Amino acid sequence: MARLENRLGKQTVTFTSRPRIHCSYTIVGPSEGNGPHALEFQEILQDDMLHQKTPEQAERLMLEMAIEKALAAGQLKADDLHFFVAGDLLNQIITSTFAARSCGVPFLGVYGACSTFLEAMGLAGVLLQGGFATRVLVATASHYQTAERQFRYPLELNVQHTETNQHTVTGAAAAVISHEGDGPSLTHATFGTVVDWGMKNVFDMGSAMAPAAFNTIKQHLEDTGRNLEDYDLILTGDLGRQGSKMLRILLQKENYTGLDRLEDGGAQIYSHRQKIGAGGSGTACVAVMTLGYLLNKLKTGRIRRALVIATGALLSTVSAAQGESIPCIAHAISLEG
Amino acid sequence: MARLENRLGKQTVTFTSRPRIHCSYTIVGPSEGNGPHALEFQEILQDDMLHQKTPEQAERLMLEMAIEKALAAGQLKADDLHFFVAGDLLNQIITSTFAARSCGVPFLGVYGACSTFLEAMGLAGVLLQGGFATRVLVATASHYQTAERQFRYPLELNVQHTETNQHTVTGAAAAVISHEGDGPSLTHATFGTVVDWGMKNVFDMGSAMAPAAFNTIKQHLEDTGRNLEDYDLILTGDLGRQGSKMLRILLQKENYTGLDRLEDGGAQIYSHRQKIGAGGSGTACVAVMTLGYLLNKLKTGRIRRALVIATGALLSTVSAAQGESIPCIAHAISLEG
Repeated sequence: MARLENRLGKQTVTFTSRPRIHCSYTIVGPSEGNGPHALEFQEILQDDMLHQKTPEQAERLMLEMAIEKALAAGQLKADDLHFFVAGDLLNQIITSTFAARSCGVPFLGVYGACSTFLEAMGLAGVLLQGGFATRVLVATASHYQTAERQFRYPLELNVQHTETNQHTVTGAAAAVISHEGDGPSLTHATFGTVVDWGMKNVFDMGSAMAPAAFNTIKQHLEDTGRNLEDYDLILTGDLGRQGSKMLRILLQKENYTGLDRLEDGGAQIYSHRQKIGAGGSGTACVAVMTLGYLLNKLKTGRIRRALVIATGALLSTVSAAQGESIPCIAHAISLEG
Repeated sequence: MARLENRLGKQTVTFTSRPRIHCSYTIVGPSEGNGPHALEFQEILQDDMLHQKTPEQAERLMLEMAIEKALAAGQLKADDLHFFVAGDLLNQIITSTFAARSCGVPFLGVYGACSTFLEAMGLAGVLLQGGFATRVLVATASHYQTAERQFRYPLELNVQHTETNQHTVTGAAAAVISHEGDGPSLTHATFGTVVDWGMKNVFDMGSAMAPAAFNTIKQHLEDTGRNLEDYDLILTGDLGRQGSKMLRILLQKENYTGLDRLEDGGAQIYSHRQKIGAGGSGTACVAVMTLGYLLNKLKTGRIRRALVIATGALLSTVSAAQGESIPCIAHAISLEG
């Protein structure tokens, strides 16, 4: 039996009602604030612990701050929202669930590792286009200290990192998606399938995730009948330097043109002189780069149309310890200024 | 500013297009197969390890089996599906992501602890009603051994349980939701907010979750203008004996009538003689009870209209160890035969 067609194509949904990014806010930590994109973010923390006792509490507070300030920017209150769609890297997505407790909005918890934020953005589009909501809050946060101690080693061990290793971005981002205002609009979402090329090196997530990004880009272009050249900027979330290299090779092998439009959030959030492995990662990486760097470009008219692809490595410490390979996913959205 | 109205009410969305449970399959472990509802499930495992090396692999295989057999029951292939919406209790929802790798359908990972399955069902309704899909696969699984060692103690320690403690159901359930066929239809979904009454006892999740169930039931009735008497059966997922008692008290305090319609999946999946604490829990509990027990009643006309409320305790081992209370959520769906 042939695969059915959905509203647009095989994996892409189209938002004819043009939901928009009504308001947003981004916060980053000190290291990200020392990077080349510092001026693109609304707030840079001087202390990534925010005077909290634990980094988990700091991550949570950072997310709550981003939500509060995004709402303030749009002159909105929590009561004006229909849904809060969020997820994060911590086990049982506690950062998001505790933030959901604070804001009291009907909560849809989502998880797609570092692709989480775009899954949330895509679902916000679905809820708005379908007439189920008029305003949807999407948000995420990640923190270097919490992710390191959950997924890798406690910082106290001072373990040396490999060159392909990525650094979890300390940051938080929130946005309200609605049909109001004149912000950039969400035109499509391409929801990815899980891709696994058998890679097992947990210190090289970029290489594991690149095939997922490739599949989703290919599918998006097929579904929409577009070329890479139809986008002024194609931003992958956190492939890092290693994964970005891999993605280029995969696209070149199938003779795609327009690769000059490719950029990667993880590869460019830190400068080379910061010597942070292969770049940034974490759920906040693509979120702050999209709502900071990319949104500024769209709002000021420097670019008109962008494709964002967020990739996630869907492993756990248990699956890795049990010798499993790393299943990956990529979700994409297109934005127009 | 007043809270906005969505398609129906404040937190409830209504599915006028009547998405239906097209096909489904339920699998339970040996203990659940010894309970009073054994005959309601399609398959009872004799060996909950399914000849796998680890319980995590057994949980995954069980979910893949449920998906395969649900598709076979509906004479469908993975290629006929637009979305796979799933989540589970394991860190980074690996059971679901590995199953998503096997079936190759665009994947939306969700998490709401033991409410996960109804979040997925509600989202399936949204995707179908909104015209984004014609067939959506929803599924979940949980396993006593994996949940115990992740959240509590390794089984090898043989820790004695308290009377309010609940036992994670070993089971898996999958369903395809579509506009086809003549299965029971999904008429409403009420998405919950996070509720936290400050409870911290991780061995009494029922008491922590009861207020969330109460809030969502109250909101559902307010949004739909219905009474408890409008439902032939009101099934909570896994409040267990303790949480069910609490829910009754909360409803009685506000003078609700029709409490004779209340049943709880967790409280009745095991018999008293099995001496399994306060009953069952886990993402599979509400899923197998809904797609097994409840669906049979709807299909045979013993009941015509049901409300299902799934509750989730949104804590993590880290949040509990850091002294946080237990945020809880409840999502509800109504089904008609």
